[in-house]
Amino acid sequence: MAPVTNGRVLFNEIPTGYPIPGKTTVYDASQTIDLESTALDGGFLIKTLVVSIDPYMRGKMRDPSIQSYTPPFFVGQPLDNYGVGVILRSEDPLIKPGDHVYAFGFPFQQYFVAKDAKLFYKIQNEEKLPLSAYVGVCGMPGKTAYHAWKEYAHPQKGDVVFVSTAAGPVGATVAQLAKFEGLKVIGSAGSDEKVAFLKSIGVDVAFNYKTENTLEVLQREGPINIYWDNVGGETLEAALEAAAPHARFIECGMISNYNNQGPYHIKNLMHLVSKSIQLSGFIVLDLFAKYDEEFYKTVPGMVARGEIKYLEDAKRGLEAAGDAILEVQSGKNKGKSVIIVADE
Amino acid sequence: MAPVTNGRVLFNEIPTGYPIPGKTTVYDASQTIDLESTALDGGFLIKTLVVSIDPYMRGKMRDPSIQSYTPPFFVGQPLDNYGVGVILRSEDPLIKPGDHVYAFGFPFQQYFVAKDAKLFYKIQNEEKLPLSAYVGVCGMPGKTAYHAWKEYAHPQKGDVVFVSTAAGPVGATVAQLAKFEGLKVIGSAGSDEKVAFLKSIGVDVAFNYKTENTLEVLQREGPINIYWDNVGGETLEAALEAAAPHARFIECGMISNYNNQGPYHIKNLMHLVSKSIQLSGFIVLDLFAKYDEEFYKTVPGMVARGEIKYLEDAKRGLEAAGDAILEVQSGKNKGKSVIIVADE
Repeated sequence: MAPVTNGRVLFNEIPTGYPIPGKTTVYDASQTIDLESTALDGGFLIKTLVVSIDPYMRGKMRDPSIQSYTPPFFVGQPLDNYGVGVILRSEDPLIKPGDHVYAFGFPFQQYFVAKDAKLFYKIQNEEKLPLSAYVGVCGMPGKTAYHAWKEYAHPQKGDVVFVSTAAGPVGATVAQLAKFEGLKVIGSAGSDEKVAFLKSIGVDVAFNYKTENTLEVLQREGPINIYWDNVGGETLEAALEAAAPHARFIECGMISNYNNQGPYHIKNLMHLVSKSIQLSGFIVLDLFAKYDEEFYKTVPGMVARGEIKYLEDAKRGLEAAGDAILEVQSGKNKGKSVIIVADE
Repeated sequence: MAPVTNGRVLFNEIPTGYPIPGKTTVYDASQTIDLESTALDGGFLIKTLVVSIDPYMRGKMRDPSIQSYTPPFFVGQPLDNYGVGVILRSEDPLIKPGDHVYAFGFPFQQYFVAKDAKLFYKIQNEEKLPLSAYVGVCGMPGKTAYHAWKEYAHPQKGDVVFVSTAAGPVGATVAQLAKFEGLKVIGSAGSDEKVAFLKSIGVDVAFNYKTENTLEVLQREGPINIYWDNVGGETLEAALEAAAPHARFIECGMISNYNNQGPYHIKNLMHLVSKSIQLSGFIVLDLFAKYDEEFYKTVPGMVARGEIKYLEDAKRGLEAAGDAILEVQSGKNKGKSVIIVADE
């Protein structure tokens, strides 16, 4: 069989603000691969089916000399992230052709040879979900919501929960977990369309933070006992202002800071002391070992039964990755952003 | 017996910056009391021996319409705070003349009649400590250190602990508790004299934050696993910068903010997420029920045996309260600030 194009998305340049498609990242179609003869060296050949586009990827687009919680992208190399693929050929007894696998560190590349089977989670998918769900509500974003809610929320009867970016894959899952516990949920999102989605999943107070003042909403509907923070900045300041004593703040991300040189300066941190607030930053990687097994037993079934709903914003083809990354950083995506790289 | 002067310290005016003696607070000697005949109405007459001067009192000097975690002082009324007194007369069977009592809400007044015996802790003082210790290392500041260290520090072998205002009654107790656990302790203070005290109690790295750069010290001696924050602001920012992954930040106070209209703006809160920091604000009142008994069994004995050392800055007479308050707010006190109101 003749070699086929092996398209890739390369990290091209360290951005100072938003990552620009064609500048920060470029699609490259210069490489080819012979799917039948390429050497496996005891490993296996994967056809990439889905890659995930996530907010935290912006943090990897940095000077590699800067330490952070995730390794940097390297200029000239493919981006990588969570992905799902199908095995085309294998020399590893643990993995066989036709297996579907999920892993961190999928290169943004149509085909690749991998070796360490332990790093790949074999998707059974008895629920027959679309495979893209396994990078979303049944993948890292879903785990982020589920694991940290279990670890840090300490929900109590009557609690009021505020979730920022509540229409996103993490926020929407958190909001629905909170509703399952019978709590009042306030959710913010950046468009009326997203607000309508929030209402459809049972969020009690859904509002568009671009047209309504977050602090006013929280002061009217709070005080809040649990704040799931995806954004930081002014929204975190409003949540501190409207927090009840002994509130739990789960610090999942601060996307409002990622693309600015100067972050918003929070003026009321003293509430941390005066309201005895427990604030927990976390990296979901640290919680995988504790909660993954329970998660896979619980969440795909809930999704299949419609107990957890999600929005997906799927684009086709790796060529679209740069656009998808920019949309996620600027809040323009409408649900979990995924790239459908190929059908099986 | 003729009536005697019953001197008081009144809250006179809400301050905008530092509380000024003679302006924010005034000493008033216009009242008298007849110690033999004043009516008890079933209560007891207390002679005030010691009152405590603490940083948090600044927060009570506010417009009473502003809600906060402690009730406000009222203009024209005496200040109040933790104190120790001796019972002169009593109509309450639970309390008898000669008893020494400790309580919150001692008015800054030489003599007063009180009623609710449950609010007064009877000091046994088998260790024969100076009574002023019971508003310091064996009182609220000691409990602040002990209770919150037990609740939030989660110390692990090899941890590095940073304590700000480490020569104060809270900080010094925290530093010594951390040393008992065999941990490396970094402590900052605002004078070379305080630094010398820190060295004398075993602090491994003691420095004067006015002459050494906090961030540089922490980056050289850290990363830090536990930060005991008494100051907030720029020091908190430095601690976030030098924090190890999974660091625990205990937010005891933010004195750097108390007397300014515009607090310092922390620029690097994103480390809360990227380093998975657990930040616990607390009010020690909430921890009394859980730890007070253990505290009284443990700490006075440690103090008597010299295992916990402390500095005390005692002034004599209620007339000195205004000066003491200002010194505490501006960091000029040399140890736990107390007013010795009277000898027995």
